Amino acid sequence: MAAAALLFRGAARGPPALAFTRALGSAPPGPVSRGARRAALAAAGTLGGLGLALGLWRRQAALAAAREDEEEKELRQRFMAPPVSGLRELRRRRRELRSRMEVLIMETQAEMCRALADLDPGASFAVDSWERKEGGGGISCVLQDGEVFEKAGVNVSVVSGFLSEEAARQMRSRGKSLKAKDGKLPFCAMGVSSVIHPKNPHVPTMHFNYRYFEIEEADGTKQWWFGGGTDLTPTYLNEEDAVHFHKTLKEACDKHDLKLYPKYKKWCDDYFYIKHRGERRGIGGIFFDDVDSPSKEEVFQFVKSCAKAVVPCYIPIVKKHCHDSFTPEEKLWQQLRRGRYVEFNLVYDRGTKFGLLTPGSRIESILMSLPLTARWEYMHNPPESSKEAEMLEVLRNPKDWVH
Amino acid sequence: MAAAALLFRGAARGPPALAFTRALGSAPPGPVSRGARRAALAAAGTLGGLGLALGLWRRQAALAAAREDEEEKELRQRFMAPPVSGLRELRRRRRELRSRMEVLIMETQAEMCRALADLDPGASFAVDSWERKEGGGGISCVLQDGEVFEKAGVNVSVVSGFLSEEAARQMRSRGKSLKAKDGKLPFCAMGVSSVIHPKNPHVPTMHFNYRYFEIEEADGTKQWWFGGGTDLTPTYLNEEDAVHFHKTLKEACDKHDLKLYPKYKKWCDDYFYIKHRGERRGIGGIFFDDVDSPSKEEVFQFVKSCAKAVVPCYIPIVKKHCHDSFTPEEKLWQQLRRGRYVEFNLVYDRGTKFGLLTPGSRIESILMSLPLTARWEYMHNPPESSKEAEMLEVLRNPKDWVH
Repeated sequence: MAAAALLFRGAARGPPALAFTRALGSAPPGPVSRGARRAALAAAGTLGGLGLALGLWRRQAALAAAREDEEEKELRQRFMAPPVSGLRELRRRRRELRSRMEVLIMETQAEMCRALADLDPGASFAVDSWERKEGGGGISCVLQDGEVFEKAGVNVSVVSGFLSEEAARQMRSRGKSLKAKDGKLPFCAMGVSSVIHPKNPHVPTMHFNYRYFEIEEADGTKQWWFGGGTDLTPTYLNEEDAVHFHKTLKEACDKHDLKLYPKYKKWCDDYFYIKHRGERRGIGGIFFDDVDSPSKEEVFQFVKSCAKAVVPCYIPIVKKHCHDSFTPEEKLWQQLRRGRYVEFNLVYDRGTKFGLLTPGSRIESILMSLPLTARWEYMHNPPESSKEAEMLEVLRNPKDWVH
Repeated sequence: MAAAALLFRGAARGPPALAFTRALGSAPPGPVSRGARRAALAAAGTLGGLGLALGLWRRQAALAAAREDEEEKELRQRFMAPPVSGLRELRRRRRELRSRMEVLIMETQAEMCRALADLDPGASFAVDSWERKEGGGGISCVLQDGEVFEKAGVNVSVVSGFLSEEAARQMRSRGKSLKAKDGKLPFCAMGVSSVIHPKNPHVPTMHFNYRYFEIEEADGTKQWWFGGGTDLTPTYLNEEDAVHFHKTLKEACDKHDLKLYPKYKKWCDDYFYIKHRGERRGIGGIFFDDVDSPSKEEVFQFVKSCAKAVVPCYIPIVKKHCHDSFTPEEKLWQQLRRGRYVEFNLVYDRGTKFGLLTPGSRIESILMSLPLTARWEYMHNPPESSKEAEMLEVLRNPKDWVH
């Protein structure tokens, strides 16, 4: 129990550390726990009476079953669905970083979904657990056409198998030397990724993604790295919101190293660049990839801080503006910006490209990032000094929001 | 004059062959033509009287000027704007294939725009002539938010300069051995390209593109090829329309070689494949690329037949359905299909990619192919045996429409 508790304590935030003895849904009920069995046997040995020992055993078993029910209940409260790797497997390899990361991404998914659902009580998340034939699977949570959110997707995926030739080429092109064994590169990738498109044009779109990657090379050594980021895409600029968003992210970074925020803020501005438009997708945030130092543990702790900052950096902005009034012209401008969002995601986004290139990917989960609706007008140019032009100016020349 | 006439006769269809002595718009009035001058001098020599010769000269000059005005008028009727290369330059190198191709694409643009405008009299085309800093330019004609058409773009571009590293890589990846001189590859590319998105979901979207490419290699030899195609993307399947569309294209092909239609029909089905969806973009048509045999002249004549088939294969379908009634559900399905159109164009389309990779490209002209509005729903699956499912079936398993 203590060992299992460790597994979950590593990633837990609000609720106390817990252990789960069986998975939800289709998995069969687990056996009586080893601890209970040992206690019963010890009691039987000490007392020497078989009947008494059996009675104790039964009581222990009943207690264990009750605990399981309780744990299952708590599990339901804590995650959106049973984890891809299964609870027992996660517990078995609880000290491995990939288990702790899987728990973190599951918790991040649940935290975000609950925060969003609270703001849009009429709507509900469709929760789909899916398997990937080639290995692994995921849990996609999508809320569509709500009162507050046009489309909100929070996706967890934990996939493994062999890298496709195309995906390996893409990775090598950014400097990785991947030595394949018999032309094969076993990999394991997991992450939580989310795009929230609200209805009201005064509520910005938000995206975050935290991921972990492992590749096994020909000589058996493992390359690993983390990537991720959180960024905001407003339709109209609101400086106060921009400052709040960046400040929250900076605080998460500063806990680990003061150099991180400035570095990853710039990386974000550079990454979310729609080259053919000469515009950024939004007002940025943080972005990083291929991070494999100073140590696995330290990078994981940093990623955890970032993941925990997602709800506090965004949800207050939604609450503040989701009842703002807006004009049809403002809605139209939002739709045009949605078009740019689609352009970035389909033409440049590394995650989307990796997904489209990976055989057996779940396309619906990858493309849930696309907005419900978008618009393209030929030669649309907002008038000078308009609110729309003000937004474009910041997209063309990113600003520093916190120092 | 006869020589100039030849230039235009090569590509003319309806109106008689014409010669233009000056360009429209900003170009200065041209000099009196060489023919008129020669006639006047001959007259002067024969008659021997200077006054008489001068009078004849003046009369000839006035006649030439009147002819120019008339020609300018006809030019306006024939093209949407003055050609990129300028009329004099086109006339100077009238025998060269690239001049004849430029005239063909200009005429095709005008024919299509007029046919569309006739069907949507309340709307009008915005005609933009643009220059490319690196060489060449184009003419974009876009009709937006009309009664019949949501967005109709017909674009001509004639660009030259040096291939970007990325564009050269893309070409080499499909088997071209391009030997650069000092790392540079001078190229010339021209084409007409068009996407028509109608409002009514019972009127299909249509796309066509005919292009010519020349690249000069290190040893001075020129590689050249033609590419192009015409294809249809219905929201709902109408077999009669599909047969009409394919039959018209087949007739255009059959005039040149009976093998062309089956070959290019298949190429079209293969090319317009949205791999990550397992669907074609539409019900196909014809598509070809890198065609450089049997001879430049023969390929040009084939391309010309295809370009001339664009209006007759599509316009009757628009006329037939543009007043059909439709439900909100049908409009919604159209919007979802528009989303797929965007996916194909941004993720796979070779022309779009080439445009986005070519420095100095006019992005608005490249992305005019995107619909005015599009929609993405998570996990949208039409019910079995519905009209929507029938459409999907054909997109998943292309059919032969004519034999």
